Amino acid sequence: MTSYSEDSFPKESHFSRRGLLVGGGLASIGVALGIGTTRDLSPDNRNGVPPSESLIPFFGTHQAGIATPPQNHLLFGAFDVTTSRGDDLRAMLNAWSQAAAAMTAGQVVGTTTNTYAPPVDTGEARGLPAAGLTITIGYGPGLFTKDFGLTAPRLQPLPNFPGDNLTENESYGDIAIQCCADDPQVAFHALHMLARMGLGVVQLRYSQLGFGRTSVTTASQDVPRNLLGFKDGIENLRTNSARDYARFVWIDPHASTPRWQHHGTTMVVRKIRTHIESWSSSSLDTQEAVIGRFKDSGAPLSGSKMDDAPDFSAVDQYNNYVIPSSSHVRLASQHSNGGMTILRRGYGYSEGISPQSGEMLCGLYFICFQKDPHQFVTVQNSLSLADALNDYIEHVSSAVFAIPGGLAKGDAWGDQLFRS
Amino acid sequence: MTSYSEDSFPKESHFSRRGLLVGGGLASIGVALGIGTTRDLSPDNRNGVPPSESLIPFFGTHQAGIATPPQNHLLFGAFDVTTSRGDDLRAMLNAWSQAAAAMTAGQVVGTTTNTYAPPVDTGEARGLPAAGLTITIGYGPGLFTKDFGLTAPRLQPLPNFPGDNLTENESYGDIAIQCCADDPQVAFHALHMLARMGLGVVQLRYSQLGFGRTSVTTASQDVPRNLLGFKDGIENLRTNSARDYARFVWIDPHASTPRWQHHGTTMVVRKIRTHIESWSSSSLDTQEAVIGRFKDSGAPLSGSKMDDAPDFSAVDQYNNYVIPSSSHVRLASQHSNGGMTILRRGYGYSEGISPQSGEMLCGLYFICFQKDPHQFVTVQNSLSLADALNDYIEHVSSAVFAIPGGLAKGDAWGDQLFRS
Repeated sequence: MTSYSEDSFPKESHFSRRGLLVGGGLASIGVALGIGTTRDLSPDNRNGVPPSESLIPFFGTHQAGIATPPQNHLLFGAFDVTTSRGDDLRAMLNAWSQAAAAMTAGQVVGTTTNTYAPPVDTGEARGLPAAGLTITIGYGPGLFTKDFGLTAPRLQPLPNFPGDNLTENESYGDIAIQCCADDPQVAFHALHMLARMGLGVVQLRYSQLGFGRTSVTTASQDVPRNLLGFKDGIENLRTNSARDYARFVWIDPHASTPRWQHHGTTMVVRKIRTHIESWSSSSLDTQEAVIGRFKDSGAPLSGSKMDDAPDFSAVDQYNNYVIPSSSHVRLASQHSNGGMTILRRGYGYSEGISPQSGEMLCGLYFICFQKDPHQFVTVQNSLSLADALNDYIEHVSSAVFAIPGGLAKGDAWGDQLFRS
Repeated sequence: MTSYSEDSFPKESHFSRRGLLVGGGLASIGVALGIGTTRDLSPDNRNGVPPSESLIPFFGTHQAGIATPPQNHLLFGAFDVTTSRGDDLRAMLNAWSQAAAAMTAGQVVGTTTNTYAPPVDTGEARGLPAAGLTITIGYGPGLFTKDFGLTAPRLQPLPNFPGDNLTENESYGDIAIQCCADDPQVAFHALHMLARMGLGVVQLRYSQLGFGRTSVTTASQDVPRNLLGFKDGIENLRTNSARDYARFVWIDPHASTPRWQHHGTTMVVRKIRTHIESWSSSSLDTQEAVIGRFKDSGAPLSGSKMDDAPDFSAVDQYNNYVIPSSSHVRLASQHSNGGMTILRRGYGYSEGISPQSGEMLCGLYFICFQKDPHQFVTVQNSLSLADALNDYIEHVSSAVFAIPGGLAKGDAWGDQLFRS
């Protein structure tokens, strides 16, 4: 931790923008990469998004990466806390939020003045724009059983659901870091930097690369398709409904929770493997009956346009529901869950093949946010028993985290958590 | 194979662009996704590249995906041939190239007219633009030992190099498919489709997702950084030197090889794990001495600008080489390899963590092209013995493939290979 003292993170830039490497001999060249040193905004912006548009503010009432428009790439990491000293954890979290503020602003982290030392910033995102990077932190139930005197009421581990086939070392974790960006190298750099800065205090438990957002949070984003080939996130909560967000997502600032939870939420993470060959080999009729929507248009089977509200009462000539009882859309809907819902923000993943079958190992890295994990539990209980999609998918990891509220400028994650 | 007969791939579109799903009841809706049916060019183009610019022609003298400007995402797949019937292999390869022509043009594959059957196109790229997709095929040494009567002179398996620590089931393979795109979901769809179409003839042996090109082939692309944080590909062969390509990459059309190899090349694939924490914990001086370049500017240690030619004879006041004898740049250079060189086209990768150390499992999925694999062997022999970078990296997979020349319109991969 010593190399990440407050002094390593000056609030103001001491150095001019861009490089500053003065060429010359091999040794003893002073290299300075200061916070405030904007990374080069290369004309070959790798995602074509003007840098100004791809910068999402780090500070605010809520953390970024929840209601903000989903980027196209994810690198998720979960850490175990290895220290027993609360002061070390607090200092590391403080340093993390300072680094996160820099990286999400497209800046390099810290200053490197001694070439005999490792560079503070590892450098792989240098020259790339911010790429819409968001870094979102969460705290798992295990953190609150440790001797730090911290509490997070109502954040219980998730129950086991029927059909769960969880891999222990890709599940759980004391601290979650969700890095989303329009360039995976920018997300990689963010997690890599935090993992390095945490050495001796935390250790990476698992990480997951994701691509292809499967959700929208605003009306202006197109609804994407998931790896099943279906449009996904059609009925996701949109930010234009502040009432929905207040009801389902954000923890009330007057709630009787520790203060750091105010304006926060909770996050559930489930790695859902798709048995892609079984799915792809099933008929179009079957696929549409399983999902409850038309594959091409995304319209509910009761309608003709994507945005048509599903009519769960519609029946066909044989008096069967047009949107079948076991369809995913019906069972996941507010209709089937007493009005309960969640904010989805997942990504596809692909990671080699099954050595047994030669099938591609791929699926959905499902992430959702809700005021209380009970909301997810309600929906998942509904799905886990009856969802026709269960024949094609398998939940292979699980985790839940308390997501603190956003930081005001000048505040830091460690101080926020420990002063409450 | 029966479901991928020639008839499934009409050369002309029978259907209009876009959807065609006529809404209505659940069953017996004719869905037709024809070749020539351009995928929706969504206004939310996920990479911001105008669709017209992101279309790379499939047909041509050389295959795309070699000298064409590197895209930002890779999904590489290697297949084992499981059939002993040459006719089946030939028919599948023919179907593959027709599907590849459609997908690289941003079109859906085949036609689905029967909703009781699986959709021909799996659908996950529907609505996405072509995203610069290239699909490049190669044939491994094992294919030429089978009873198909095929030969590929000079395509020998690579030797073992000092330090190799190869994983058998991520190495080798009879057929390689390199999918590159500016959207990983488009690359995923391409490999998924080909894997599905090959069932019963070939089986996926391994696949690898990559991000962050580490090379340039044209003067107009920015030189990117690799996961070591260094600019990579500075001295890579540029397409503006036709002479270099004729000398080092393309097999001469008059060469005494089977005709399918004319205008082709060979491909070497090496998965190179980076021990990222050892690397990131080494001093800036050390990192720069290991690479032989300045980290910030990319300039050789003998110069001050990225494009400065390295001066391998320059010495410091102690008469030591300014670009050290064991530096990667020196040992990989034409200077150290009798004028020999290769065309690099690799990608970064990240795939979870080491359960032992908690270190991120990541590195470089190294891909290179050269007229003869001997060129790579020469460079790798030079590197494997003395490269200072070997302390931080580990070669964990290896493969080599013969890359056929490009297809003329109307020609197909199976016919090209078998008629020679």
